[in-house]
Amino acid sequence: MCTITEQFARIIENSNKEDLAILTDYLSNFEKKQQGEFSTYLSASLNMTRITDEQSSVVAIPNTPFIHNNVAIPHGGILAVLLDTAMGTLANSKCPNGTTAVTTNLTIHYLTVATEETISARAHIIRSGRHTMVLEGNIFQADGKHIATATGSFFIIPEKKESITALQQ
Amino acid sequence: MCTITEQFARIIENSNKEDLAILTDYLSNFEKKQQGEFSTYLSASLNMTRITDEQSSVVAIPNTPFIHNNVAIPHGGILAVLLDTAMGTLANSKCPNGTTAVTTNLTIHYLTVATEETISARAHIIRSGRHTMVLEGNIFQADGKHIATATGSFFIIPEKKESITALQQ
Amino acid sequence: MCTITEQFARIIENSNKEDLAILTDYLSNFEKKQQGEFSTYLSASLNMTRITDEQSSVVAIPNTPFIHNNVAIPHGGILAVLLDTAMGTLANSKCPNGTTAVTTNLTIHYLTVATEETISARAHIIRSGRHTMVLEGNIFQADGKHIATATGSFFIIPEKKESITALQQ
Amino acid sequence: MCTITEQFARIIENSNKEDLAILTDYLSNFEKKQQGEFSTYLSASLNMTRITDEQSSVVAIPNTPFIHNNVAIPHGGILAVLLDTAMGTLANSKCPNGTTAVTTNLTIHYLTVATEETISARAHIIRSGRHTMVLEGNIFQADGKHIATATGSFFIIPEKKESITALQQ
Repeated sequence: MCTITEQFARIIENSNKEDLAILTDYLSNFEKKQQGEFSTYLSASLNMTRITDEQSSVVAIPNTPFIHNNVAIPHGGILAVLLDTAMGTLANSKCPNGTTAVTTNLTIHYLTVATEETISARAHIIRSGRHTMVLEGNIFQADGKHIATATGSFFIIPEKKESITALQQ
Repeated sequence: MCTITEQFARIIENSNKEDLAILTDYLSNFEKKQQGEFSTYLSASLNMTRITDEQSSVVAIPNTPFIHNNVAIPHGGILAVLLDTAMGTLANSKCPNGTTAVTTNLTIHYLTVATEETISARAHIIRSGRHTMVLEGNIFQADGKHIATATGSFFIIPEKKESITALQQ
Repeated sequence: MCTITEQFARIIENSNKEDLAILTDYLSNFEKKQQGEFSTYLSASLNMTRITDEQSSVVAIPNTPFIHNNVAIPHGGILAVLLDTAMGTLANSKCPNGTTAVTTNLTIHYLTVATEETISARAHIIRSGRHTMVLEGNIFQADGKHIATATGSFFIIPEKKESITALQQ
Repeated sequence: MCTITEQFARIIENSNKEDLAILTDYLSNFEKKQQGEFSTYLSASLNMTRITDEQSSVVAIPNTPFIHNNVAIPHGGILAVLLDTAMGTLANSKCPNGTTAVTTNLTIHYLTVATEETISARAHIIRSGRHTMVLEGNIFQADGKHIATATGSFFIIPEKKESITALQQ
């Protein structure tokens, strides 16, 4: 305990304003995860919110330096996290009890750079079969700019840990 | 300062063993970022290492609960981060001075679940043109299992922040 | 001349009903190509019709045994011809004078088997940039069934034969 | 019979050298289809040859004006036919008896223009599961030029016509 607390004090001392903002967000969301507001460390670290209804699933994160690549724009892989989560959440909401949907294919076209404070991906279903689903996901800004478009294929498998591990496609 | 330190103490107090491991890694890598060992918050949070040579670029991260989705397997989007970073790093290493490569298209096939302690993506170049590049990226385990295969298209643009923002394709 | 006419007579003699239907269509469209109704041998052989307006391009072909694979359903590659042609036609209609759009990336999800008499692909533009375009294409049946969904990236190049051959991306 | 023979004579009369070459090839391969050398009208019209062994499948066609688009280069969709056929042929050769593999996803990157007399696609297997397969296909020229790279997902279904039509994924 001691070491980590000392390390934390040292980090705070050496933090610039951006470091401090990142750290504050991280801890705040980490605590919310402990309180059950986030289901995974990853969604907590990204401060991810999800809304799913019958037709679509919307997943949003703040556009902060935490997700930027080294040319200071949102990392393409993080947009993939967002699109995959939106599509996967909707796919799972449609799966019969005892089954879960795993991504088998993800294709993303990056159209332009996300510049607004929030980045939000919306998914809808293209085709829903017994064994596979195909979904579309899009990232649009509030100003109408189309940031990215994606399609994903999902495979529906029994929801036991072992089957997921074996991924018996 | 006071609030964040109190919050940190509270988080530590409420942490289970997994929380503590995640937090310890996060802080340790955050400090390394402050010391210049990581170039971005994201690469620090993922504890990402990169090795690039003439032919390929290899990007690796530890396979910890930090990157897991809510069925406890590595999030497909994080594998996308890895693959996009490996391909983008190699593409950038080949760009003429004053230019940078941005991802325009990313296609990933997820083949099976990554189960080893380290997840490692290796990229190589398929085609290198004046304006665009196409790369391939693969995630293989040490035991030979093929986890994911990806292709990416990159567009080469002037390295000024403004051009990136405008993404003048 | 003699040989080909003799061969043709022999083929006709050995033709079953399906052969004869295929041959009749082929010759009929070949003659239309000679009369300028089709711009390429390929579009003639597929009896392809195109309608392009401001927003979209629609390309249709009859669903005959000519395009079937060896399990007697339309060949996936022919649907690719249709989708690529619809997207490419629309992309080209938006290109500035003296430039042309070439496909750099094509991703297709096959959703279900086309069973109607006509197969029709409709394209629309997702993003139109100075150097690249991204389009979406879909094949829907009149009965509402979604047969295939596709996205394509196009690169805009000078319209000289040499540049196309060099494909100076 | 009379009409089609008259029409054929008229077409021959109006044919330029290129027309005649296309027509000669078409009839010659149509007759070979009647004699059982080709399994489909499409493979006959493209004069397609296939060689499949344990590791790979190679599908080749001549690069003639028959497959050219209206900027006189091979139509991207025809390269898709080639790549899909190579991957599908190999996938099917690995399917258990009584099952067949249908394409669910096809992604192609077009790298440069095919200029040699023969265009040849080679497929190999990336992953072979119980229900799905992922393959890679590439078009290389004899001179070493990489023309296109593709990946495809295939779904394994019972080989009855009805199942294919229903495509019970």
